[in-house]
Amino acid sequence: MREVAQREDIRDIILDAVDALLARYGYKKMTMDDVAREVGIGKGTIYLHFVGKEDLTLSHIDRIVERLCEQLEEIAASHEPAQARIRAMLQRRVLYRFDCVQHYTQSLNDLLSALRPSLLLRRQRHFQQEMDVFVKVLEEGRRSRQLRVQDASETAYALLLATNSLLPYSLSPAELGERKLLEQEVTQVANLLLSGLQARTKKRRLRRV
Amino acid sequence: MREVAQREDIRDIILDAVDALLARYGYKKMTMDDVAREVGIGKGTIYLHFVGKEDLTLSHIDRIVERLCEQLEEIAASHEPAQARIRAMLQRRVLYRFDCVQHYTQSLNDLLSALRPSLLLRRQRHFQQEMDVFVKVLEEGRRSRQLRVQDASETAYALLLATNSLLPYSLSPAELGERKLLEQEVTQVANLLLSGLQARTKKRRLRRV
Repeated sequence: MREVAQREDIRDIILDAVDALLARYGYKKMTMDDVAREVGIGKGTIYLHFVGKEDLTLSHIDRIVERLCEQLEEIAASHEPAQARIRAMLQRRVLYRFDCVQHYTQSLNDLLSALRPSLLLRRQRHFQQEMDVFVKVLEEGRRSRQLRVQDASETAYALLLATNSLLPYSLSPAELGERKLLEQEVTQVANLLLSGLQARTKKRRLRRV
Repeated sequence: MREVAQREDIRDIILDAVDALLARYGYKKMTMDDVAREVGIGKGTIYLHFVGKEDLTLSHIDRIVERLCEQLEEIAASHEPAQARIRAMLQRRVLYRFDCVQHYTQSLNDLLSALRPSLLLRRQRHFQQEMDVFVKVLEEGRRSRQLRVQDASETAYALLLATNSLLPYSLSPAELGERKLLEQEVTQVANLLLSGLQARTKKRRLRRV
């Protein structure tokens, strides 16, 4: 048994084991005994921190999004122009998730099909967590007149929706393809979202619908 | 046996039956005998038009996209401003697919999981078919100075990617939710894509990345 001083440490070590076991066995075959063996602790200790297998797995997914949001906050707090921060945040939300699933052989949806209803609910919460960071940058960009934004929440929502198809939900890492291509794709979408299409003539007034 | 004069008619009638049977039984349980019985013709007649169950099912999906593309072409040929046509085309690609899967109980990915590799290849082709229509409108919009577009293919690609998360690939009709909400979502994304975020001050020059 490893010596761990902090509650957070042991949680993280257990979730690391869950990550490895999901890649090795998949959700259905993974047992609490496997997790205990992988960490090198008793099953009872795991139950001190998690209710069961479903809780373990959802907590692992939560942790990915928490870590992502920390990175988004970091980008949001940087001194780049608002537009550059939004672009970097959109790229990060896609590429960080890509990196997190590289060792799996299935798509997340297939891997976690047994958890589907809880997983979809969880995604809504994750979506909201990400949105909050985008809203901050959008509002700040509006105040500093760097961005033309009417409703920051609506805009943040649309920014996330527009890049959601690039998240590794329904495609396996093999199907997702090259990281480089994905990076190009998210950058293209982000640039389009950020720069808009409409001709910038002086006479034309923007039509907002 | 129904009397049908034309090859196209009988193909369409067979594919209508496939659509109904996929909703009723799912892909795995559907047999060629079921299809023949549903249409009221001999199995041999079906084999005159289709190689087998996989061909039948993929042809049914192809037909959805062909019909969608006809609708997109219609919108593309209308006399609306380019921006309004692009918006309407994005809405249509999402909502038409939504309408086409309403009678299924599973997501398309789950319904057709046995066909996955062929289905993903097919989707690439469908994506290209849709892209061609968008490219035409984008190029026309550029010529008439209604749109600011550098590379029409790249832009079309990004427009489709940005609305792909709203297609009913990995969510069942129940999970997809209300049509009205979906319409709002695609409209929000489309408006953002079309109008852009950047402040339109005269001094600032657009940075293209």
